[in-house]
Amino acid sequence: MSNERLIYLPLGGAGEIGMNAYVYGYGKPGKERLILVDLGLTFPDMDGTPGVDLILPDMQWLIERRDQLEAIFVTHAHEDHIGAVAHFYGELGAPIYARAFTANLARRKMSEHGHPEKAVHTVSAWPETREYGPFEVGFVPISHSIPESSGLVIDTPKGRLVHSGDFKMDRNPIVGEAFDEDLWRSLAEPGVLALMCDSTNVFNPHPGRSESEIGGEIEALVESAEGMFVATTFASNVARVKTLAEAGKRAGRSICLLGRAMRRMVEASIETGVLTDFPKTISPEDAKSMPRGNVMLLVTGSQGERRAASAQLAQGKYQGITLKGNDTFLFSSKTIPGNERGVIRIINQYSEMGVDVVDDSSGKYHVSGHANRPDLSALHHLLEPKYVVPMHGEHRHLREHVKLSQSNGFKGILAVNGAMVDLSAKKPTIVEYVETGRTYLDGSVKIGALDGVVRDRMRMALNGHIMINVIIDEDDEILGDPWCEIKGLAEEGHSRAPLVDVLEEDLSQFIGRANNKTLMDDEKLEEGLRKVARQTSQTEIGKRPEVSVIISRLSA
Amino acid sequence: MSNERLIYLPLGGAGEIGMNAYVYGYGKPGKERLILVDLGLTFPDMDGTPGVDLILPDMQWLIERRDQLEAIFVTHAHEDHIGAVAHFYGELGAPIYARAFTANLARRKMSEHGHPEKAVHTVSAWPETREYGPFEVGFVPISHSIPESSGLVIDTPKGRLVHSGDFKMDRNPIVGEAFDEDLWRSLAEPGVLALMCDSTNVFNPHPGRSESEIGGEIEALVESAEGMFVATTFASNVARVKTLAEAGKRAGRSICLLGRAMRRMVEASIETGVLTDFPKTISPEDAKSMPRGNVMLLVTGSQGERRAASAQLAQGKYQGITLKGNDTFLFSSKTIPGNERGVIRIINQYSEMGVDVVDDSSGKYHVSGHANRPDLSALHHLLEPKYVVPMHGEHRHLREHVKLSQSNGFKGILAVNGAMVDLSAKKPTIVEYVETGRTYLDGSVKIGALDGVVRDRMRMALNGHIMINVIIDEDDEILGDPWCEIKGLAEEGHSRAPLVDVLEEDLSQFIGRANNKTLMDDEKLEEGLRKVARQTSQTEIGKRPEVSVIISRLSA
Repeated sequence: MSNERLIYLPLGGAGEIGMNAYVYGYGKPGKERLILVDLGLTFPDMDGTPGVDLILPDMQWLIERRDQLEAIFVTHAHEDHIGAVAHFYGELGAPIYARAFTANLARRKMSEHGHPEKAVHTVSAWPETREYGPFEVGFVPISHSIPESSGLVIDTPKGRLVHSGDFKMDRNPIVGEAFDEDLWRSLAEPGVLALMCDSTNVFNPHPGRSESEIGGEIEALVESAEGMFVATTFASNVARVKTLAEAGKRAGRSICLLGRAMRRMVEASIETGVLTDFPKTISPEDAKSMPRGNVMLLVTGSQGERRAASAQLAQGKYQGITLKGNDTFLFSSKTIPGNERGVIRIINQYSEMGVDVVDDSSGKYHVSGHANRPDLSALHHLLEPKYVVPMHGEHRHLREHVKLSQSNGFKGILAVNGAMVDLSAKKPTIVEYVETGRTYLDGSVKIGALDGVVRDRMRMALNGHIMINVIIDEDDEILGDPWCEIKGLAEEGHSRAPLVDVLEEDLSQFIGRANNKTLMDDEKLEEGLRKVARQTSQTEIGKRPEVSVIISRLSA
Repeated sequence: MSNERLIYLPLGGAGEIGMNAYVYGYGKPGKERLILVDLGLTFPDMDGTPGVDLILPDMQWLIERRDQLEAIFVTHAHEDHIGAVAHFYGELGAPIYARAFTANLARRKMSEHGHPEKAVHTVSAWPETREYGPFEVGFVPISHSIPESSGLVIDTPKGRLVHSGDFKMDRNPIVGEAFDEDLWRSLAEPGVLALMCDSTNVFNPHPGRSESEIGGEIEALVESAEGMFVATTFASNVARVKTLAEAGKRAGRSICLLGRAMRRMVEASIETGVLTDFPKTISPEDAKSMPRGNVMLLVTGSQGERRAASAQLAQGKYQGITLKGNDTFLFSSKTIPGNERGVIRIINQYSEMGVDVVDDSSGKYHVSGHANRPDLSALHHLLEPKYVVPMHGEHRHLREHVKLSQSNGFKGILAVNGAMVDLSAKKPTIVEYVETGRTYLDGSVKIGALDGVVRDRMRMALNGHIMINVIIDEDDEILGDPWCEIKGLAEEGHSRAPLVDVLEEDLSQFIGRANNKTLMDDEKLEEGLRKVARQTSQTEIGKRPEVSVIISRLSA
């Protein structure tokens, strides 16, 4: 028994914010029984992943060990925790466990992917626990910006682990369970070996604020508005959606939900009993026919997403509704770093329409869903773990959280994606580096982040593309001249002749000079043509484009 | 004489932050004598302008009227004000006027582009003025985040205009002239018809802070650091560079400048007498051989620019210098919206090296160069203009600034790029909309923003690219089968055969079915092949790529 070990292995989420996937294992080295906590995704951007639909963690390591996998637990229904569950069900096959609201959304995802809904099991909250192989796991309610978020207590033969999940310490969260300090302190009674802990807001020095603190401010804003009032927030922030809707109702406005995610989240919340007495909503048609001052729209797109309701309203119209002067648009949200351009684009579009935009620069209309630095320290002290293992953060967050742990008197362990930690060792160390990375969902297929497909797209975007076609007949003689097309390049360069003509001329000359050995060798010919094309392009327009050469051999 | 008019026409900078270019004109409609204030550029990004080198304003309107253009004035040497001067010298040809420091940098740009340095004229500051056609123009010193920034007093037959330039009200700016309230009040004595006014920080409700307020904090930080101390800021923020260097010197550190812009700016500042008693600097070689605690590097790249010193140090090495644990890196700067990803990337790379990064989230190590809302109001009241015309801002800034002007009791005029305002009318209105836009410097050629080149690149980046080649012989018969290549697409789709093979098979079948009319008509054939390729691709990989078809007719 003594050579069994307890391992922690993040496959996603440690060294980035997004696509969380944390493996725990217990057993003989290489034969551990495994569980997976969360299986999320992250979103692509034009900077590094143009054309990609979704970014998933590379689960190859776990797929190869699927027979060791007991269960997948989903702490809450944010996409960076639940989003990849259905994408990998076929390859992992393990049962999925979550509380009712999260399970409801997981089942919708499974069903959309043609997977059995019954693979998703609803579990009750702590103190109920269940055994999964060598692990005994319980879901402990904790407040966050989505209903029924949970931390996990994972009891193992080597001691108790606490996986915080995403959390804040909200004593009055509007929807769902308040942070229960006594409950969390009680978890520490048997002793906690390690706390895996959310690091998102480790750089924020202020104590976190409660969801309940902003209701009054939002009400005052809605009261003072004259035209239509539109508000956006993450649809999954059901407490916020409720606060907004109630502020609207009190101001005598009817509530209309716009955007699929918004309707779906409210629906799931009501179905699972998370959301009660939500104001009655009206249809977009009804909203359109009412006096503007009597309407409040709650819309998707707080991050400026191009297809969301907020962006479409900014471009003119969504479901027949058009905004205009004297209307108000509230971002009850924070812009996630990297999304600024999209959000600013929308704000300027609204400005052109005469719509007054209110964002959260005043701090009055939004609170974060993550624990700030003092709250992280408070959790450390409540649980008094032997080790703190920061997760859910970029490298800078993890490193800072390790420092914070040390200053609180707890040993911090910095483990990024792929770093397998033996928590049962006398001095826990990284025992192995596992290959991790990203898998792209591109259209309907998965491609590896490193297999060059997206790199080629970015190169075409940066450099443009020249296509060259050469036909070689049965006698290894060039038939006609090389043909050339360009895409994404200036039509004309310094010589003031069409770039295509200059290219074809130079390519012809090259072929005229080429010896038979070159003409007979596809690789050599291609290399020569590419070199000439890039050189000509450099001279003409100052760019070195991507070049594709198609050699058609009639003899073949 | 009575039908002469005074016009204001922004060609860039009004409705965006970047590429400032403001035209003023006086004379009979259509025959006005013109001056141009500033001629800047803006920077491309992967989101909307992949592969583009620089973005310039579309100056076509002015180029067509170059014989009416008296002069170009450059208020200060930031790239968004000076950057396009040399790019358009060939097409505009007008003399350029600026104060010594700005002129020094303008001459360097002219010379790099092979234009005569003597086209740039150095002017003295207010109260000196000169006549340029119907205008009398003086450069009034005003504080900003670069030396010798100036507002312009533009006296016209219809009254006095004040063009604020970029400004803040800094009574102790470290380098250059302090904001002189009495001087600015005196400008109002003859009455001010219109104030064209910086709008950048109109949403910031706090009074602006002086450059001199942060020196102490920076010194304390440098004093407390142990390893190498590295700081970045905009190189053109010479006051900041001086504050940083002096803090380093007082802490017993030798100063090393890294990055071309950093050396060039300090050089120009010393040459023009703007910067005096700057600490002696050492070379990178010397820096490398000194104890780390005795060195301070001042480096370019505060916005995370990929080629700048900060990014290269983050990737491992720059000019032989490598950072490591216990070193400190200070961002004495604010991240411009849209640049967050690049900056965060660098911070995480430093975190991995063990370098402590300090950014400006505390507000202690950076102050803005632009006037905040209360300072804008103060300028309104100092000058008491008949009209306030907000400039240097996105639409939301201009609109808010108009509102602020109105609430201060001054008529605000919202004029975006292309809106020509007749300031001499009884009620100034927009009399004409001129076509404006963006010109891209792409490699070594200029292309129009709307001519489709960049759009094609973005489409290739988002959708991938299929190239199809068909050879048709002298008898209008297909020779062999269609050839196909892909770039930026998954190699294999749902049928588990190479995508290229599936495409070629489907294309062959299409050609087999095609009638003679289709085969003889390039356009029809191309359309048919494109449709099949996109359909097959959609089925196989769920994407609809860009398709280029090359039809080679041997008869031609």
